[in-house]
Amino acid sequence: MNTAASSLRDASAAVLAGRLLGGDRGALAHAITRAEHGGECAIALLERLHAHTGRAWRIGVTGPPGAGKSTLTGALVRELRAASATVGVIAVDPTSPFTHGAILGDRVRMSGVSNDSGVYIRSMATRGAVGGLSRAAGDAADLVDAAGFDYVVVETAGVGQTELDIADAADTTLLVLVPEGGDFVQALKAGIMEIADLYVLNKSDRPGAHEALLAVRSMLIAGHPAGGGWRREIHPAVATESRGVAEVAAAIASHRRFLTESGELARRRGAHLARRVRRLVEGMLEPQLWDEVRTRELNSGVDDLLHGRLSPHRLAERIVASFRAGVAAPATRR
Amino acid sequence: MNTAASSLRDASAAVLAGRLLGGDRGALAHAITRAEHGGECAIALLERLHAHTGRAWRIGVTGPPGAGKSTLTGALVRELRAASATVGVIAVDPTSPFTHGAILGDRVRMSGVSNDSGVYIRSMATRGAVGGLSRAAGDAADLVDAAGFDYVVVETAGVGQTELDIADAADTTLLVLVPEGGDFVQALKAGIMEIADLYVLNKSDRPGAHEALLAVRSMLIAGHPAGGGWRREIHPAVATESRGVAEVAAAIASHRRFLTESGELARRRGAHLARRVRRLVEGMLEPQLWDEVRTRELNSGVDDLLHGRLSPHRLAERIVASFRAGVAAPATRR
Repeated sequence: MNTAASSLRDASAAVLAGRLLGGDRGALAHAITRAEHGGECAIALLERLHAHTGRAWRIGVTGPPGAGKSTLTGALVRELRAASATVGVIAVDPTSPFTHGAILGDRVRMSGVSNDSGVYIRSMATRGAVGGLSRAAGDAADLVDAAGFDYVVVETAGVGQTELDIADAADTTLLVLVPEGGDFVQALKAGIMEIADLYVLNKSDRPGAHEALLAVRSMLIAGHPAGGGWRREIHPAVATESRGVAEVAAAIASHRRFLTESGELARRRGAHLARRVRRLVEGMLEPQLWDEVRTRELNSGVDDLLHGRLSPHRLAERIVASFRAGVAAPATRR
Repeated sequence: MNTAASSLRDASAAVLAGRLLGGDRGALAHAITRAEHGGECAIALLERLHAHTGRAWRIGVTGPPGAGKSTLTGALVRELRAASATVGVIAVDPTSPFTHGAILGDRVRMSGVSNDSGVYIRSMATRGAVGGLSRAAGDAADLVDAAGFDYVVVETAGVGQTELDIADAADTTLLVLVPEGGDFVQALKAGIMEIADLYVLNKSDRPGAHEALLAVRSMLIAGHPAGGGWRREIHPAVATESRGVAEVAAAIASHRRFLTESGELARRRGAHLARRVRRLVEGMLEPQLWDEVRTRELNSGVDDLLHGRLSPHRLAERIVASFRAGVAAPATRR
């Protein structure tokens, strides 16, 4: 390890962390970019700021494409701002208008938010490694938290495992559904209903909304109870008109009280942190596992696989044995 | 290792493999169940059958919920059967009617297929570990292949990473889109267009179909070219009426010829096998990594994390060091 490079990195992290803690928005933006890139510079910075995290309330917003997550997030931000709270938004949604530089397609209606110094909005790219995105989104939420925002809203699109991983790392997770398209039925079937703390039936002025509401309610009653005895409910809303959004904000506040008073919050945040450490460990071991030696073993084994001379399981066993031997050999311990 | 148990397992695998290779459908069903459960019994069986795989043509069918993947798969099966080919279907779709025991919601229309001995249909559960599902689906496709079917169709729902992993392990991957709902635009934006070899615009008798077709065509022309110079195309279809399905089958045949003649097939299957081995290796190392010792280290570190006395990265580094030391120590080498 290069000591000069490492002390330069620490000095740079100290300066950036100081500016971020002092409320400098440029420093926050710079810090998130550093977290996106990952590596030692990101670690040095996150290290320094970890002790300043844990104060913000983290809200995850997820749901199928077209459910109106961005519109709901925008309306929720206005609602939280009306109570003088500051809000940071991390948008991890490839289809979100956030990623095009506006909080909503309709810039005019949102100008009150996008020019507001109590609001910070940041979009994150979904291209590239999906696992990396999940890590970077968590790191970005930490940075917004350390920067002193009262709320961090993380918005993700889709209902895949990664999106759930991201949304699930929140204190309060919202699942946004819509009456049409049968999305809610599919969400129920896929078993993802149980990941959320609150449900929002957006576009609830559309046909079929009442039936959808009743269907989800009966599923929530029949489903597994949430940790600590929280009662999951579905809230109808029309985000484009901010209808039902005050009720959603009230439900978030009520969930926050519940988690805090029941002691469930520490358990939940502990579980999130443990999951994050597991992912970090796996990310650190990956380059050690798939180094030049194992990559060569894998590539040379593929030809035997294609000709049926070797099976995938045997090759995998061989590589695992090689990794164990390599880790044990002092030569590879740098 | 228990030698008696291991030789019993080998004997049982030999009997089951023999029956499966002899065309016994009950043995195939039993073998897939064994693959779903995983573990040593599954490995012993897959070991024995690996040399018999590679003959079937594997078709992956994926796309957003509601795109009509199951209907298209059903129509495609009839088309392939009309040319006297045998077809095995692995349905990994929580919303698929396959998983309810029928190839389509309309059993009457499909009775020709579901009573046909040249067709084998198997659904796989999506609950539980998602990574495990991806492995099990690949293993099931191998078993159907070894059982002598000419085609294996793997149908998955959604557009998440796991679904892509499953569909992408095919020789020919189909992405099914529909005109409405902007699904195709979202698919384009999410960058998933490039994973498929063929595109099907299902429900192409609906409003907006022509515009959607043109939009996707221009994206396909603008996008990155496929490996080896294959030209991706979108085919309009109305799967409920089997319209356009013959063209889809012809495009699959054309893609097959292209891959075989260009030598791209070996490269592609090699890449799939390498990915599979990587997953197997990671699956084997996981229980070694997260054994009692590391799980305890993780859990006891979480309290320090919650109080800001330790950062996630430092804890991860500590666990990685412990793993390296543990692997190196002879005591843990059983």
